[in-house]
Amino acid sequence: MSDLLLRGGRPWIPGAEPAVADIAVTGGRITAVGADLAAPAGGEVIDLDGALVLPGFVDAHCHLDKTLWGGPWVPHSSGGPTLADRIANGERRRAELGLPSADYAANLLRIMAAHGTSFVRSHVDIDPDVGLGGVAAVRAAAERNADLVDVELVAFPQGGLIARPGTAELLAAALADGVEVVGGLDPAGYDGDPVAQLDLLFDLADRYGAKIDIHLHDRGALGVWQYRLIAERTRATGLSGRVVISHAYAMGEQAPDEQRRVAEELAEAGVAMITCAVGTAPVVPVRVMRAAGALLALGNDGIRDLWTPFGDGDMLRRASTVANRDRLVIDADLELALYAATYGGAQVLGLGEYGLTAGAPADLVVVAAQTPAAAVAGIAERRMVVKRGRVVARTGQLLAH
Amino acid sequence: MSDLLLRGGRPWIPGAEPAVADIAVTGGRITAVGADLAAPAGGEVIDLDGALVLPGFVDAHCHLDKTLWGGPWVPHSSGGPTLADRIANGERRRAELGLPSADYAANLLRIMAAHGTSFVRSHVDIDPDVGLGGVAAVRAAAERNADLVDVELVAFPQGGLIARPGTAELLAAALADGVEVVGGLDPAGYDGDPVAQLDLLFDLADRYGAKIDIHLHDRGALGVWQYRLIAERTRATGLSGRVVISHAYAMGEQAPDEQRRVAEELAEAGVAMITCAVGTAPVVPVRVMRAAGALLALGNDGIRDLWTPFGDGDMLRRASTVANRDRLVIDADLELALYAATYGGAQVLGLGEYGLTAGAPADLVVVAAQTPAAAVAGIAERRMVVKRGRVVARTGQLLAH
Repeated sequence: MSDLLLRGGRPWIPGAEPAVADIAVTGGRITAVGADLAAPAGGEVIDLDGALVLPGFVDAHCHLDKTLWGGPWVPHSSGGPTLADRIANGERRRAELGLPSADYAANLLRIMAAHGTSFVRSHVDIDPDVGLGGVAAVRAAAERNADLVDVELVAFPQGGLIARPGTAELLAAALADGVEVVGGLDPAGYDGDPVAQLDLLFDLADRYGAKIDIHLHDRGALGVWQYRLIAERTRATGLSGRVVISHAYAMGEQAPDEQRRVAEELAEAGVAMITCAVGTAPVVPVRVMRAAGALLALGNDGIRDLWTPFGDGDMLRRASTVANRDRLVIDADLELALYAATYGGAQVLGLGEYGLTAGAPADLVVVAAQTPAAAVAGIAERRMVVKRGRVVARTGQLLAH
Repeated sequence: MSDLLLRGGRPWIPGAEPAVADIAVTGGRITAVGADLAAPAGGEVIDLDGALVLPGFVDAHCHLDKTLWGGPWVPHSSGGPTLADRIANGERRRAELGLPSADYAANLLRIMAAHGTSFVRSHVDIDPDVGLGGVAAVRAAAERNADLVDVELVAFPQGGLIARPGTAELLAAALADGVEVVGGLDPAGYDGDPVAQLDLLFDLADRYGAKIDIHLHDRGALGVWQYRLIAERTRATGLSGRVVISHAYAMGEQAPDEQRRVAEELAEAGVAMITCAVGTAPVVPVRVMRAAGALLALGNDGIRDLWTPFGDGDMLRRASTVANRDRLVIDADLELALYAATYGGAQVLGLGEYGLTAGAPADLVVVAAQTPAAAVAGIAERRMVVKRGRVVARTGQLLAH
């Protein structure tokens, strides 16, 4: 059943006060949004009683191949606070814990969908030890849950690219096999040769028509300097709109003037950022990005894995955490956090068709909140989740099909 | 019904691995914890199937008189980032919004109880404008929900004490009327005369047999200097174990050596701290306090009020937020956060009888988690909440009685 009339909800179109309207769905797509729409022939009619309707959430940065979701509790064991500690621990223990696991990844995708996420970009570790095993596992998980959520993969050199011989060839193999995005990792601070890594990434993107998404934890001037390298290459290669810097901790640390300068450069070059607001890491300043016209998305990052014991896969909660960490408290600012978890995510990932308008896939979430700002601040209950016109969850629980 | 046998749960006794045991309850108190206990005559038997059992949560710092919980969405309006901005806005708008409200406070107490909180310390604003209206409202809310949660009040000079003539007399009246705790507010940074405010607070505590709980947002050396003033007076007046510094932002900012020095002084003087980990404010370092033997409790602080649009009244989530903010990730450290939300809270508030042992009130929470650390990290589902031997909530929902 993908023909549906959602009657009398209040769809959130950014910039407008949500007003009561019907949403008609045929063949899994929204066919009309407006007053007094007729039910599709033979379609189901669901009365929303004025409830707020959001487009499906976009989790623009997670690591499905690493999660232990649904398995027994695994005490945290990284043994150290640095990135290198965590990378080493992750590689050391993954096989013992059965990672990468299609089952755990599928468990997490299901809870993400129950919370209202309809699109996920997942990084997948690739290195000479694990090879493309993570790609296979996450693809299997995504296939099993293809009716709940769409998944895009990033071929991610978690162990380094220049520093780890053999990885570049594996990334190329993954892209040749249809992985949509090529990933990078701290070209300077971790990989030790920023020019070589970035040249390689942009070359792979060009050869395979892939997008680029670079983990950039490097702090201070070292981080900002690499943003410029990335912006320069993006302009030079014509990849505007297809390049993302994930985490971008240094951006959150800059003084406001420098943040504005960087955001303007990103906007001009067509480079987006993704922030996750995990733990105490700096958050990309949401208002500054918006004012400059630079694109920003949100993601959950690691969820209950060897990197962190925390996380629940809920993008509305993630938006609320970002709002908390970035001091977004007035309604207009809270809406920016929600925007980043929805429309912003769709822009950053380049989802062409998205939103609560005719022609877009009918991916949406009905929430118990008076306004979009209230939904973020109060992490509103998800009354109903619709994926491609099918009701897949109610009150946070997936429906059996 | 307050006679009960909880069969086969795993009660959490800090320092021990939770092992399967029965918990017998008669007259609202735990009468025995052990193997193969007999059901009290005529009592209900509930099989816990090995589920983890925690003592009821202690919310050691909240503001029931300020909440708008359950009312229509009120966009944030403080108009400025400073403490003075928020105080002024709160006083300006409270009447218009019907605050203080026994109904809103009752709404919040009910959701707190549904999440498993069994004891609440609430500050209540007192000033010449609102008088003792907040005390009356919160008392009414507490009385309506006396079967769900115990509430202790702090007579809190939110508008200043030395700086606001007439307030001291009202605090005295509140204490004379049975309010248990006298509150303070930034004796230096806000009130402008730290010696005068502290002398007044300790004198009121002495005269009325009250405890003391001082909001201390002052940062850096100014904050730490006042911790010393408070410790000195606590020693001098014999009020050890009855004095709390709430928020203590400066403590979270100090270098580790200074944090240790302060924590040792607090432990020696019998002064506790309460941290709320709200927004981006510094968090009192949980491990440092524990290592020094200084007491620490947690609280939700403001919840959906004129100060903040955020908050949900869930103390297990608050413990998880504190863990996130204080980088508590290994199991032993996650347990410290849970300890602060339970046993630590009971110690700080001076609840004599508390915990999962014979003689204590049967206030407990059954959670869906393998270990205490997993409960904090994953913000485990609350399967059942028991208050004084009565099941009051299941799966996060209050039961009708």
